[in-house]
Amino acid sequence: MIADVIGARSSAVDVRTVVRRDGILRERVDRVCVEEPLEIRLCARGETRRVAVTMRTPGADLELAAGFVLGEAIVPNRAAIRAIRHCDDRDLSPDERGNVVTVDVRARIEASALLERHFTISSACGVCGTAGIELLRARGLRAIESDARIDGALLAQLPERMRVRQNVFDATGGLHAAALFDLDGEVLAVREDVGRHNAVDKIAGFIALRGIDSSHTALVVSGRCGYEIAQKAIAARIPIVASVSAPSSLAVELANEFGLTLAAFVRTDRWNVYSGLHRIAG
Amino acid sequence: MIADVIGARSSAVDVRTVVRRDGILRERVDRVCVEEPLEIRLCARGETRRVAVTMRTPGADLELAAGFVLGEAIVPNRAAIRAIRHCDDRDLSPDERGNVVTVDVRARIEASALLERHFTISSACGVCGTAGIELLRARGLRAIESDARIDGALLAQLPERMRVRQNVFDATGGLHAAALFDLDGEVLAVREDVGRHNAVDKIAGFIALRGIDSSHTALVVSGRCGYEIAQKAIAARIPIVASVSAPSSLAVELANEFGLTLAAFVRTDRWNVYSGLHRIAG
Repeated sequence: MIADVIGARSSAVDVRTVVRRDGILRERVDRVCVEEPLEIRLCARGETRRVAVTMRTPGADLELAAGFVLGEAIVPNRAAIRAIRHCDDRDLSPDERGNVVTVDVRARIEASALLERHFTISSACGVCGTAGIELLRARGLRAIESDARIDGALLAQLPERMRVRQNVFDATGGLHAAALFDLDGEVLAVREDVGRHNAVDKIAGFIALRGIDSSHTALVVSGRCGYEIAQKAIAARIPIVASVSAPSSLAVELANEFGLTLAAFVRTDRWNVYSGLHRIAG
Repeated sequence: MIADVIGARSSAVDVRTVVRRDGILRERVDRVCVEEPLEIRLCARGETRRVAVTMRTPGADLELAAGFVLGEAIVPNRAAIRAIRHCDDRDLSPDERGNVVTVDVRARIEASALLERHFTISSACGVCGTAGIELLRARGLRAIESDARIDGALLAQLPERMRVRQNVFDATGGLHAAALFDLDGEVLAVREDVGRHNAVDKIAGFIALRGIDSSHTALVVSGRCGYEIAQKAIAARIPIVASVSAPSSLAVELANEFGLTLAAFVRTDRWNVYSGLHRIAG
Protein backbone atom coordinates (compact mmCIF):
# COMPACT_ATOMS: atom_id res chain seq x y z
CA MET A 1 0.00 0.00 0.00
CA ILE A 2 1.41 3.31 -1.09
CA ALA A 3 -0.85 5.90 0.45
CA ASP A 4 -0.35 9.62 0.67
CA VAL A 5 -2.28 10.76 3.72
CA ILE A 6 -1.37 14.38 3.25
CA GLY A 7 -2.50 16.16 0.11
CA ALA A 8 -0.03 17.85 -2.17
CA ARG A 9 1.50 20.86 -0.49
CA SER A 10 2.32 24.05 -2.26
CA SER A 11 5.54 24.16 -4.27
CA ALA A 12 5.64 27.94 -4.64
CA VAL A 13 4.77 30.84 -2.34
CA ASP A 14 4.50 34.61 -2.68
CA VAL A 15 7.11 36.88 -1.14
CA ARG A 16 7.60 40.64 -1.31
CA THR A 17 10.61 41.78 -3.30
CA VAL A 18 12.12 45.01 -4.56
CA VAL A 19 13.13 44.84 -8.20
CA ARG A 20 15.78 47.08 -9.73
CA ARG A 21 15.71 47.30 -13.50
CA ASP A 22 17.40 50.00 -15.53
CA GLY A 23 18.16 51.87 -12.33
CA ILE A 24 14.49 52.07 -11.22
CA LEU A 25 13.30 50.37 -8.01
CA ARG A 26 9.84 48.86 -7.90
CA GLU A 27 8.18 46.84 -5.17
CA ARG A 28 6.35 43.71 -6.24
CA VAL A 29 5.17 40.27 -5.19
CA ASP A 30 7.28 37.44 -6.51
CA ARG A 31 6.75 33.67 -6.43
CA VAL A 32 9.60 31.62 -5.00
CA CYS A 33 9.89 27.85 -4.86
CA VAL A 34 9.15 26.26 -1.50
CA GLU A 35 12.04 24.58 0.30
CA GLU A 36 11.30 22.43 3.35
CA PRO A 37 13.08 19.52 5.01
CA LEU A 38 11.88 15.97 4.35
CA GLU A 39 12.80 13.37 6.94
CA ILE A 40 12.92 9.83 5.57
CA ARG A 41 12.42 7.05 8.12
CA LEU A 42 12.85 3.34 7.66
CA CYS A 43 10.71 0.94 9.65
CA ALA A 44 11.94 -2.68 9.80
CA ARG A 45 10.97 -5.35 12.35
CA GLY A 46 8.91 -2.74 14.16
CA GLU A 47 11.89 -0.50 14.75
CA THR A 48 11.86 2.93 13.13
CA ARG A 49 14.99 4.92 12.34
CA ARG A 50 15.68 8.21 10.62
CA VAL A 51 17.84 7.56 7.57
CA ALA A 52 18.10 11.01 6.04
CA VAL A 53 16.87 14.56 6.05
CA THR A 54 16.96 16.29 2.70
CA MET A 55 15.93 19.83 1.82
CA ARG A 56 13.31 19.48 -0.89
CA THR A 57 10.35 21.08 -2.60
CA PRO A 58 7.13 19.43 -1.34
CA GLY A 59 5.42 17.17 -3.85
CA ALA A 60 5.97 13.53 -4.90
CA ASP A 61 7.39 12.91 -1.40
CA LEU A 62 6.63 9.19 -1.47
CA GLU A 63 8.43 8.84 -4.80
CA LEU A 64 11.33 10.81 -3.40
CA ALA A 65 11.59 8.52 -0.39
CA ALA A 66 11.31 5.38 -2.54
CA GLY A 67 13.85 6.61 -5.08
CA PHE A 68 16.25 7.59 -2.32
CA VAL A 69 16.23 4.35 -0.33
CA LEU A 70 16.45 2.24 -3.49
CA GLY A 71 19.08 4.41 -5.21
CA GLU A 72 21.28 4.40 -2.15
CA ALA A 73 20.82 0.65 -1.75
CA ILE A 74 19.40 1.02 1.77
CA VAL A 75 16.57 -1.16 0.53
CA PRO A 76 17.61 -3.77 -2.05
CA ASN A 77 14.58 -3.70 -4.36
CA ARG A 78 10.98 -2.65 -4.81
CA ALA A 79 9.66 -5.95 -3.47
CA ALA A 80 11.22 -5.25 -0.08
CA ILE A 81 9.02 -2.16 0.36
CA ARG A 82 5.77 -3.01 2.12
CA ALA A 83 4.35 0.52 2.33
CA ILE A 84 5.34 4.16 2.18
CA ARG A 85 3.36 6.85 3.93
CA HIS A 86 3.51 10.30 5.40
CA CYS A 87 3.91 10.10 9.13
CA ASP A 88 0.88 10.61 11.36
CA ASP A 89 2.65 10.65 14.74
CA ARG A 90 0.70 12.64 17.26
CA ASP A 91 3.98 14.05 18.51
CA LEU A 92 4.40 15.97 15.30
CA SER A 93 2.61 19.18 14.35
CA PRO A 94 0.48 18.97 11.16
CA ASP A 95 3.21 20.87 9.27
CA GLU A 96 5.85 18.46 10.44
CA ARG A 97 3.77 15.41 9.51
CA GLY A 98 3.85 16.52 5.89
CA ASN A 99 7.63 16.57 6.14
CA VAL A 100 8.17 13.04 7.46
CA VAL A 101 7.83 9.91 5.30
CA THR A 102 8.17 6.36 6.64
CA VAL A 103 9.21 3.48 4.41
CA ASP A 104 8.03 0.13 5.85
CA VAL A 105 10.29 -2.69 4.75
CA ARG A 106 9.96 -6.44 5.05
CA ALA A 107 11.53 -7.92 8.12
CA ARG A 108 14.56 -9.59 6.64
CA ILE A 109 16.36 -6.36 5.80
CA GLU A 110 19.18 -5.63 8.18
CA ALA A 111 18.40 -1.97 8.23
CA SER A 112 20.81 -0.93 10.94
CA ALA A 113 23.77 -2.62 9.30
CA LEU A 114 23.00 -1.05 5.97
CA LEU A 115 22.63 2.35 7.49
CA GLU A 116 25.92 2.19 9.30
CA ARG A 117 27.64 1.20 6.15
CA HIS A 118 26.44 3.61 3.57
CA PHE A 119 24.82 6.41 5.11
CA THR A 120 24.06 9.95 5.20
CA ILE A 121 22.28 11.71 7.89
CA SER A 122 21.80 15.38 7.82
CA SER A 123 19.82 16.63 10.72
CA ALA A 124 21.01 20.11 9.91
CA CYS A 125 17.49 21.21 10.73
CA GLY A 126 14.25 19.86 12.13
CA VAL A 127 11.34 18.84 10.02
CA CYS A 128 9.89 22.21 9.23
CA GLY A 129 11.41 25.46 8.08
CA THR A 130 10.94 27.06 11.50
CA ALA A 131 12.86 24.25 13.15
CA GLY A 132 15.75 25.00 10.80
CA ILE A 133 15.76 28.60 11.96
CA GLU A 134 15.52 27.56 15.60
CA LEU A 135 18.43 25.18 15.20
CA LEU A 136 20.63 28.01 13.96
CA ARG A 137 19.55 30.09 16.97
CA ALA A 138 20.37 27.16 19.26
CA ARG A 139 23.83 27.05 17.73
CA GLY A 140 24.25 30.62 18.94
CA LEU A 141 23.94 32.38 15.59
CA ARG A 142 22.81 35.97 16.04
CA ALA A 143 21.39 38.42 13.49
CA ILE A 144 23.96 40.26 11.38
CA GLU A 145 24.13 43.88 12.49
CA SER A 146 26.76 45.15 10.07
CA ASP A 147 26.30 48.69 8.76
CA ALA A 148 27.73 47.58 5.40
CA ARG A 149 26.26 49.29 2.32
CA ILE A 150 26.89 48.62 -1.34
CA ASP A 151 25.94 50.66 -4.39
CA GLY A 152 22.99 49.12 -6.25
CA ALA A 153 24.55 49.53 -9.70
CA LEU A 154 27.80 48.01 -8.45
CA LEU A 155 25.93 45.04 -6.93
CA ALA A 156 24.47 44.26 -10.38
CA GLN A 157 27.99 44.00 -11.81
CA LEU A 158 29.45 41.58 -9.27
CA PRO A 159 28.43 38.30 -10.97
CA GLU A 160 30.16 39.34 -14.18
CA ARG A 161 33.28 40.31 -12.20
CA MET A 162 33.25 36.82 -10.68
CA ARG A 163 32.58 35.17 -14.02
CA VAL A 164 35.68 36.56 -15.72
CA ARG A 165 37.78 35.05 -12.92
CA GLN A 166 36.34 31.54 -13.19
CA ASN A 167 39.27 29.74 -14.74
CA VAL A 168 37.98 26.22 -14.59
CA PHE A 169 34.50 27.17 -15.76
CA ASP A 170 36.03 28.62 -18.90
CA ALA A 171 37.63 25.28 -19.64
CA THR A 172 34.75 23.00 -18.72
CA GLY A 173 31.49 24.94 -18.44
CA GLY A 174 30.87 22.71 -15.46
CA LEU A 175 31.61 24.47 -12.22
CA HIS A 176 29.72 26.47 -9.69
CA ALA A 177 31.49 29.43 -8.16
CA ALA A 178 31.39 31.62 -5.10
CA ALA A 179 33.29 34.87 -4.69
CA LEU A 180 33.92 37.30 -1.89
CA PHE A 181 33.99 41.02 -2.70
CA ASP A 182 34.66 44.13 -0.68
CA LEU A 183 32.08 46.90 -0.83
CA ASP A 184 34.01 48.75 -3.54
CA GLY A 185 33.52 45.73 -5.77
CA GLU A 186 37.11 44.46 -5.50
CA VAL A 187 37.32 40.69 -5.55
CA LEU A 188 38.95 39.12 -2.47
CA ALA A 189 38.63 35.46 -3.49
CA VAL A 190 36.95 33.28 -6.11
CA ARG A 191 36.46 29.54 -5.51
CA GLU A 192 35.03 26.98 -7.92
CA ASP A 193 33.56 23.55 -7.28
CA VAL A 194 31.15 20.98 -8.73
CA GLY A 195 29.04 21.66 -5.63
CA ARG A 196 27.76 25.18 -4.95
CA HIS A 197 27.82 24.49 -1.18
CA ASN A 198 31.47 23.46 -1.43
CA ALA A 199 32.39 26.67 -3.25
CA VAL A 200 30.76 28.63 -0.41
CA ASP A 201 32.50 26.49 2.24
CA LYS A 202 35.80 27.32 0.53
CA ILE A 203 35.03 31.04 0.82
CA ALA A 204 34.04 30.63 4.49
CA GLY A 205 37.30 28.77 5.08
CA PHE A 206 39.23 31.51 3.28
CA ILE A 207 37.71 34.05 5.69
CA ALA A 208 38.45 31.93 8.76
CA LEU A 209 41.96 30.83 7.85
CA ARG A 210 43.12 34.29 6.74
CA GLY A 211 41.42 36.00 9.67
CA ILE A 212 39.46 38.31 7.38
CA ASP A 213 36.86 40.67 8.83
CA SER A 214 33.79 39.73 6.79
CA SER A 215 31.51 42.42 8.24
CA HIS A 216 31.91 44.62 5.15
CA THR A 217 31.93 42.05 2.36
CA ALA A 218 29.48 40.57 -0.15
CA LEU A 219 29.21 36.95 -1.28
CA VAL A 220 28.30 36.18 -4.90
CA VAL A 221 27.11 32.70 -5.87
CA SER A 222 26.47 31.24 -9.29
CA GLY A 223 23.08 29.60 -9.65
CA ARG A 224 20.36 29.44 -7.03
CA CYS A 225 20.31 30.42 -3.36
CA GLY A 226 18.65 27.95 -0.99
CA TYR A 227 18.71 27.33 2.74
CA GLU A 228 22.21 25.90 2.76
CA ILE A 229 23.85 28.87 1.04
CA ALA A 230 22.02 31.43 3.20
CA GLN A 231 22.93 29.50 6.35
CA LYS A 232 26.60 29.32 5.41
CA ALA A 233 26.72 33.05 4.65
CA ILE A 234 25.16 33.88 8.02
CA ALA A 235 27.56 31.55 9.84
CA ALA A 236 30.48 33.27 8.07
CA ARG A 237 29.02 36.67 9.09
CA ILE A 238 28.78 37.96 5.53
CA PRO A 239 26.06 40.66 5.44
CA ILE A 240 25.21 40.60 1.71
CA VAL A 241 24.54 37.67 -0.62
CA ALA A 242 23.97 38.09 -4.35
CA SER A 243 22.91 35.04 -6.33
CA VAL A 244 22.68 34.83 -10.10
CA SER A 245 19.50 32.79 -10.09
CA ALA A 246 16.39 32.27 -7.93
CA PRO A 247 16.12 32.08 -4.12
CA SER A 248 14.09 29.48 -2.24
CA SER A 249 11.36 30.25 0.30
CA LEU A 250 13.50 29.13 3.20
CA ALA A 251 16.50 31.21 2.11
CA VAL A 252 14.24 34.28 2.14
CA GLU A 253 12.91 33.39 5.61
CA LEU A 254 16.41 32.86 6.97
CA ALA A 255 17.63 36.11 5.48
CA ASN A 256 14.77 38.00 7.13
CA GLU A 257 15.34 36.32 10.50
CA PHE A 258 19.08 36.82 10.57
CA GLY A 259 19.42 40.27 9.02
CA LEU A 260 21.03 39.07 5.80
CA THR A 261 20.68 41.15 2.65
CA LEU A 262 19.57 38.69 -0.02
CA ALA A 263 19.65 39.69 -3.69
CA ALA A 264 18.80 37.22 -6.45
CA PHE A 265 18.51 37.18 -10.24
CA VAL A 266 21.48 39.55 -10.16
CA ARG A 267 22.45 40.36 -13.76
CA THR A 268 24.33 43.26 -15.32
CA ASP A 269 21.28 45.48 -15.52
CA ARG A 270 19.05 44.22 -12.72
CA TRP A 271 18.43 42.44 -9.43
CA ASN A 272 15.64 41.53 -7.00
CA VAL A 273 16.20 42.08 -3.28
CA TYR A 274 14.22 39.86 -0.89
CA SER A 275 15.60 41.05 2.43
CA GLY A 276 17.80 43.81 3.87
CA LEU A 277 17.31 46.53 1.24
CA HIS A 278 18.77 49.07 3.69
CA ARG A 279 22.27 47.82 2.78
CA ILE A 280 21.84 48.91 -0.83
CA ALA A 281 22.65 52.49 -1.71
CA GLY A 282 21.91 54.67 -4.72
CA MET B 1 49.78 25.70 11.37
CA ILE B 2 47.77 25.39 8.22
CA ALA B 3 49.92 23.35 5.87
CA ASP B 4 48.97 21.81 2.59
CA VAL B 5 51.26 18.80 2.15
CA ILE B 6 49.83 17.91 -1.22
CA GLY B 7 50.14 20.38 -4.05
CA ALA B 8 47.11 21.62 -5.89
CA ARG B 9 45.54 18.83 -7.91
CA SER B 10 44.03 19.28 -11.29
CA SER B 11 40.52 20.72 -11.45
CA ALA B 12 39.86 19.76 -15.07
CA VAL B 13 40.74 16.73 -17.20
CA ASP B 14 40.47 15.80 -20.86
CA VAL B 15 37.90 13.27 -22.02
CA ARG B 16 36.92 12.09 -25.49
CA THR B 17 33.50 13.17 -26.66
CA VAL B 18 31.39 13.04 -29.81
CA VAL B 19 29.78 16.37 -30.62
CA ARG B 20 26.65 16.69 -32.73
CA ARG B 21 26.02 20.14 -34.12
CA ASP B 22 23.65 20.90 -36.99
CA GLY B 23 23.25 17.19 -37.59
CA ILE B 24 27.00 16.54 -38.06
CA LEU B 25 28.95 14.29 -35.67
CA ARG B 26 32.54 15.14 -34.86
CA GLU B 27 34.91 13.50 -32.40
CA ARG B 28 36.89 15.80 -30.15
CA VAL B 29 38.65 16.13 -26.81
CA ASP B 30 36.72 18.06 -24.21
CA ARG B 31 37.73 19.32 -20.77
CA VAL B 32 35.46 18.35 -17.89
CA CYS B 33 35.69 19.46 -14.29
CA VAL B 34 37.21 16.96 -11.88
CA GLU B 35 34.92 15.50 -9.23
CA GLU B 36 36.48 13.47 -6.39
CA PRO B 37 35.40 12.70 -2.82
CA LEU B 38 36.92 14.68 0.04
CA GLU B 39 36.82 13.04 3.45
CA ILE B 40 36.91 15.52 6.33
CA ARG B 41 38.21 14.15 9.64
CA LEU B 42 38.18 15.79 13.03
CA CYS B 43 40.94 15.04 15.52
CA ALA B 44 40.20 15.96 19.15
CA ARG B 45 41.96 14.60 22.28
CA GLY B 46 43.98 12.33 20.05
CA GLU B 47 40.90 10.61 18.66
CA THR B 48 40.18 10.98 14.96
CA ARG B 49 36.72 10.62 13.42
CA ARG B 50 35.33 11.02 9.95
CA VAL B 51 32.76 13.80 9.98
CA ALA B 52 31.80 14.01 6.32
CA VAL B 53 32.54 12.94 2.81
CA THR B 54 31.63 15.46 0.14
CA MET B 55 32.02 15.19 -3.62
CA ARG B 56 34.13 18.17 -4.63
CA THR B 57 36.50 19.61 -7.19
CA PRO B 58 40.07 19.39 -5.82
CA GLY B 59 41.59 22.73 -4.83
CA ALA B 60 41.33 24.86 -1.66
CA ASP B 61 40.65 21.64 0.27
CA LEU B 62 41.84 23.08 3.58
CA GLU B 63 39.55 26.07 3.18
CA LEU B 64 36.71 23.73 2.30
CA ALA B 65 37.30 21.67 5.45
CA ALA B 66 37.58 24.77 7.64
CA GLY B 67 34.50 26.41 6.14
CA PHE B 68 32.53 23.20 6.54
CA VAL B 69 33.31 22.47 10.20
CA LEU B 70 32.79 26.10 11.19
CA GLY B 71 29.64 26.61 9.09
CA GLU B 72 28.04 23.46 10.48
CA ALA B 73 29.05 24.47 14.02
CA ILE B 74 31.01 21.25 14.53
CA VAL B 75 33.84 23.51 15.65
CA PRO B 76 32.67 26.67 17.43
CA ASN B 77 35.21 29.18 16.11
CA ARG B 78 38.50 29.69 14.33
CA ALA B 79 40.46 29.74 17.58
CA ALA B 80 39.47 26.15 18.28
CA ILE B 81 41.29 24.96 15.16
CA ARG B 82 44.87 24.00 15.92
CA ALA B 83 45.86 22.80 12.45
CA ILE B 84 44.41 21.56 9.18
CA ARG B 85 46.31 19.26 6.87
CA HIS B 86 46.00 16.70 4.15
CA CYS B 87 46.30 13.25 5.60
CA ASP B 88 49.59 11.36 5.27
CA ASP B 89 48.46 7.98 6.61
CA ARG B 90 50.56 5.20 5.20
CA ASP B 91 47.40 3.13 4.88
CA LEU B 92 46.17 5.41 2.15
CA SER B 93 47.34 5.44 -1.45
CA PRO B 94 48.87 8.73 -2.65
CA ASP B 95 45.64 9.51 -4.52
CA GLU B 96 43.57 8.92 -1.44
CA ARG B 97 45.82 11.08 0.74
CA GLY B 98 44.95 14.07 -1.43
CA ASN B 99 41.30 13.35 -0.71
CA VAL B 100 41.46 13.26 3.08
CA VAL B 101 41.82 16.38 5.26
CA THR B 102 42.17 16.30 9.04
CA VAL B 103 41.12 19.24 11.21
CA ASP B 104 42.94 19.19 14.57
CA VAL B 105 40.91 20.87 17.26
CA ARG B 106 41.76 21.92 20.81
CA ALA B 107 40.93 19.35 23.41
CA ARG B 108 37.92 20.89 25.00
CA ILE B 109 35.61 20.32 22.06
CA GLU B 110 33.17 17.51 22.63
CA ALA B 111 33.50 16.29 19.10
CA SER B 112 31.41 13.17 19.40
CA ALA B 113 28.45 14.94 20.96
CA LEU B 114 28.50 17.62 18.30
CA LEU B 115 28.68 15.08 15.56
CA GLU B 116 25.73 13.10 16.80
CA ARG B 117 23.67 16.20 17.01
CA HIS B 118 24.17 17.99 13.77
CA PHE B 119 25.55 15.80 11.23
CA THR B 120 25.94 14.66 7.81
CA ILE B 121 27.91 11.70 6.82
CA SER B 122 27.89 10.46 3.33
CA SER B 123 30.20 7.59 2.79
CA ALA B 124 28.46 6.90 -0.48
CA CYS B 125 31.92 6.24 -1.85
CA GLY B 126 35.48 5.82 -0.71
CA VAL B 127 38.09 8.48 -0.94
CA CYS B 128 38.92 8.27 -4.59
CA GLY B 129 36.83 8.02 -7.71
CA THR B 130 37.69 4.36 -8.19
CA ALA B 131 36.47 3.54 -4.70
CA GLY B 132 33.15 5.11 -5.63
CA ILE B 133 32.90 2.81 -8.62
CA GLU B 134 33.91 -0.21 -6.54
CA LEU B 135 31.30 0.62 -3.93
CA LEU B 136 28.57 0.54 -6.57
CA ARG B 137 29.88 -2.84 -7.75
CA ALA B 138 29.87 -4.08 -4.16
CA ARG B 139 26.23 -3.06 -3.92
CA GLY B 140 25.58 -5.45 -6.78
CA LEU B 141 25.07 -2.89 -9.55
CA ARG B 142 25.80 -4.38 -12.96
CA ALA B 143 26.41 -2.69 -16.29
CA ILE B 144 23.30 -1.67 -18.22
CA GLU B 145 22.88 -3.93 -21.23
CA SER B 146 19.72 -2.46 -22.70
CA ASP B 147 19.48 -2.38 -26.51
CA ALA B 148 17.62 0.93 -26.29
CA ARG B 149 18.29 3.42 -29.10
CA ILE B 150 17.12 6.98 -29.53
CA ASP B 151 17.24 9.23 -32.56
CA GLY B 152 19.97 11.87 -32.24
CA ALA B 153 17.78 14.75 -33.43
CA LEU B 154 15.03 13.68 -31.02
CA LEU B 155 17.50 13.52 -28.13
CA ALA B 156 18.41 17.17 -28.74
CA GLN B 157 14.75 18.17 -28.34
CA LEU B 158 14.08 16.42 -25.01
CA PRO B 159 15.19 19.24 -22.68
CA GLU B 160 12.80 21.67 -24.34
CA ARG B 161 9.99 19.11 -24.06
CA MET B 162 10.74 18.88 -20.34
CA ARG B 163 10.99 22.63 -19.98
CA VAL B 164 7.48 23.36 -21.25
CA ARG B 165 6.13 20.99 -18.60
CA GLN B 166 7.93 22.61 -15.66
CA ASN B 167 4.99 24.29 -13.95
CA VAL B 168 6.74 25.52 -10.84
CA PHE B 169 9.80 26.73 -12.72
CA ASP B 170 7.57 28.96 -14.80
CA ALA B 171 6.28 30.58 -11.63
CA THR B 172 9.55 30.88 -9.72
CA GLY B 173 12.54 30.38 -12.02
CA GLY B 174 13.95 28.43 -9.12
CA LEU B 175 13.62 24.72 -9.60
CA HIS B 176 15.65 21.92 -11.00
CA ALA B 177 13.82 19.29 -12.98
CA ALA B 178 14.21 15.69 -14.07
CA ALA B 179 12.00 13.96 -16.63
CA LEU B 180 11.58 10.44 -17.90
CA PHE B 181 10.90 9.91 -21.61
CA ASP B 182 10.21 6.89 -23.74
CA LEU B 183 12.37 6.44 -26.84
CA ASP B 184 9.76 8.07 -29.08
CA GLY B 185 10.23 11.24 -27.05
CA GLU B 186 6.94 10.97 -25.14
CA VAL B 187 7.19 12.27 -21.60
CA LEU B 188 6.35 9.72 -18.88
CA ALA B 189 6.95 11.96 -15.85
CA VAL B 190 8.39 15.36 -14.94
CA ARG B 191 9.45 16.13 -11.36
CA GLU B 192 10.73 19.43 -9.97
CA ASP B 193 12.72 20.19 -6.83
CA VAL B 194 15.12 22.72 -5.33
CA GLY B 195 17.65 19.88 -5.37
CA ARG B 196 18.58 18.21 -8.64
CA HIS B 197 19.30 14.92 -6.81
CA ASN B 198 15.80 15.04 -5.27
CA ALA B 199 14.18 15.53 -8.68
CA VAL B 200 16.04 12.42 -9.90
CA ASP B 201 15.08 10.46 -6.75
CA LYS B 202 11.45 11.35 -7.47
CA ILE B 203 11.78 9.92 -11.00
CA ALA B 204 13.45 6.76 -9.64
CA GLY B 205 10.62 6.44 -7.12
CA PHE B 206 8.07 6.92 -9.91
CA ILE B 207 9.66 4.02 -11.79
CA ALA B 208 9.76 1.78 -8.70
CA LEU B 209 6.31 2.55 -7.34
CA ARG B 210 4.54 2.26 -10.70
CA GLY B 211 6.51 -0.84 -11.67
CA ILE B 212 7.72 0.77 -14.91
CA ASP B 213 10.22 -1.06 -17.12
CA SER B 214 12.97 1.56 -17.44
CA SER B 215 15.11 -0.42 -19.88
CA HIS B 216 13.88 1.66 -22.84
CA THR B 217 13.69 5.13 -21.34
CA ALA B 218 15.83 8.27 -21.18
CA LEU B 219 16.33 10.60 -18.22
CA VAL B 220 16.67 14.35 -18.81
CA VAL B 221 18.11 16.58 -16.07
CA SER B 222 18.29 20.35 -15.92
CA GLY B 223 21.74 21.65 -15.11
CA ARG B 224 24.89 19.61 -14.61
CA CYS B 225 25.46 15.88 -14.36
CA GLY B 226 27.82 14.72 -11.62
CA TYR B 227 28.51 11.44 -9.82
CA GLU B 228 25.28 11.48 -7.87
CA ILE B 229 23.00 11.86 -10.89
CA ALA B 230 24.84 9.20 -12.92
CA GLN B 231 24.77 6.81 -9.97
CA LYS B 232 21.03 7.29 -9.43
CA ALA B 233 20.31 6.72 -13.14
CA ILE B 234 22.34 3.49 -13.12
CA ALA B 235 20.61 2.29 -9.95
CA ALA B 236 17.23 2.99 -11.60
CA ARG B 237 18.40 1.05 -14.71
CA ILE B 238 17.84 3.96 -17.07
CA PRO B 239 20.14 3.46 -20.10
CA ILE B 240 20.31 7.06 -21.39
CA VAL B 241 20.92 10.32 -19.50
CA ALA B 242 20.75 13.74 -21.17
CA SER B 243 21.82 16.74 -19.14
CA VAL B 244 21.38 20.35 -20.19
CA SER B 245 24.75 21.43 -18.85
CA ALA B 246 28.23 19.99 -18.25
CA PRO B 247 29.20 16.54 -16.90
CA SER B 248 31.85 15.93 -14.25
CA SER B 249 34.87 13.66 -14.65
CA LEU B 250 33.44 11.05 -12.30
CA ALA B 251 30.05 11.00 -14.05
CA VAL B 252 31.89 10.21 -17.30
CA GLU B 253 33.92 7.45 -15.61
CA LEU B 254 30.82 5.91 -14.06
CA ALA B 255 28.95 6.04 -17.36
CA ASN B 256 31.79 4.23 -19.10
CA GLU B 257 32.06 1.60 -16.38
CA PHE B 258 28.35 0.87 -16.14
CA GLY B 259 27.31 1.10 -19.78
CA LEU B 260 25.31 4.30 -19.39
CA THR B 261 24.83 6.58 -22.41
CA LEU B 262 25.75 10.04 -21.15
CA ALA B 263 24.88 13.11 -23.23
CA ALA B 264 25.53 16.63 -21.95
CA PHE B 265 25.13 20.22 -23.17
CA VAL B 266 21.96 18.95 -24.81
CA ARG B 267 20.27 21.91 -26.53
CA THR B 268 17.78 22.14 -29.39
CA ASP B 269 20.43 21.95 -32.07
CA ARG B 270 23.29 20.08 -30.43
CA TRP B 271 24.69 17.68 -27.83
CA ASN B 272 27.96 16.07 -26.70
CA VAL B 273 28.02 12.35 -25.95
CA TYR B 274 30.64 11.13 -23.46
CA SER B 275 29.75 7.45 -23.29
CA GLY B 276 27.53 4.89 -25.03
CA LEU B 277 27.18 6.49 -28.46
CA HIS B 278 25.86 3.15 -29.79
CA ARG B 279 22.46 3.99 -28.31
CA ILE B 280 22.09 7.03 -30.53
CA ALA B 281 20.68 6.53 -34.01
CA GLY B 282 20.60 8.70 -37.11
